[in-house]
Amino acid sequence: MKVSVLFSSGKDSSLAAILLEPFFQVELVTISFGIEPTHEVAAESALKLGFPHSVMALPSSCIREAASMLMEDGSPGGAINYLHQQALEAVCSKSHTHVVADGTRRDDRVPLLTMPQVQSLEDRHNIIYIRPLFGYGRSAIDALVKQHLEIEQAQSDKVNKADYEAELRAFIRKQYIEGESIVERSFPSHIQSHVIDRIYH
Amino acid sequence: MKVSVLFSSGKDSSLAAILLEPFFQVELVTISFGIEPTHEVAAESALKLGFPHSVMALPSSCIREAASMLMEDGSPGGAINYLHQQALEAVCSKSHTHVVADGTRRDDRVPLLTMPQVQSLEDRHNIIYIRPLFGYGRSAIDALVKQHLEIEQAQSDKVNKADYEAELRAFIRKQYIEGESIVERSFPSHIQSHVIDRIYH
Repeated sequence: MKVSVLFSSGKDSSLAAILLEPFFQVELVTISFGIEPTHEVAAESALKLGFPHSVMALPSSCIREAASMLMEDGSPGGAINYLHQQALEAVCSKSHTHVVADGTRRDDRVPLLTMPQVQSLEDRHNIIYIRPLFGYGRSAIDALVKQHLEIEQAQSDKVNKADYEAELRAFIRKQYIEGESIVERSFPSHIQSHVIDRIYH
Repeated sequence: MKVSVLFSSGKDSSLAAILLEPFFQVELVTISFGIEPTHEVAAESALKLGFPHSVMALPSSCIREAASMLMEDGSPGGAINYLHQQALEAVCSKSHTHVVADGTRRDDRVPLLTMPQVQSLEDRHNIIYIRPLFGYGRSAIDALVKQHLEIEQAQSDKVNKADYEAELRAFIRKQYIEGESIVERSFPSHIQSHVIDRIYH
């Protein structure tokens, strides 16, 4: 069985792919909204992980919409959730796609689909949606990451990563006169990771 | 890393163990409340699966307490949840145990720990609790079971299985004058599975 794993080059989506590897034929898919070439970083990480990788382009209007949501909310949660849903809808709509996975974890609040959203996604697209890390907490994931991945960690705005946040930040910086200060104000600073190599056993 | 997987010989706990196998050193643990020798069935299935297996005895007073809950509730949900919590507490309390897992799934309602219960379990015992199937829905699990397990399916009261329900039913039948009809009335009939062999690839 093939599985398309939404891939940002971060440790969560990388670990999700590794957990699925013994049981599925893993293909990584990175979403690009055409704002910044963040998918290039993802392609490099995918090569290191040893999985086939493709980039799926979504219209930049998604990022515009997400930016409006963020401006209204004053925080990025809703916007990130919206972009993740758009990404899942797109990947689930691809022909010959039957199984789709992502790196969302037990302790994640954003992005996160509710149970009715999960059910609807599976039913409308007639696909299987898997969250391999959904039964894993932070310490379990940290232990597995340490065993299987070499990562680079830094503050979120310093890490080259193909996540929704990166393109959303770039768009706001370009689009709004006060872009830089909106980004600083709206995105809580947190540590992000980016996979630079895989540890084989 | 060793992981102790709560094991009933059903397809869920078996598949949970198989999903963990490439990443952990799996040990199966079956809980026995001393009412019926259901753990013997579990030992046979564990042998077929190729994992080391042990039986952990819990006092039959747990089953007595669960039976009282069932009599009060008129349905087995609360009682099964209580027994699962007792089982997890016992396994997490074993010395040299750092990682504990079970076969609870995305769509399960019972047994199921709430997020605060999960957090409390991990914090009090200083352990990692993993639910490998928690990000998997029914069709994903069915597809994986088909690939990896040979199972026997039948109505829940006809399947030899080392789950909480089996011993709880046996206790009620023995203990209460109207035991048989209480069991028939209280346990919704549903299809249960029991693993009889593993399919190696």
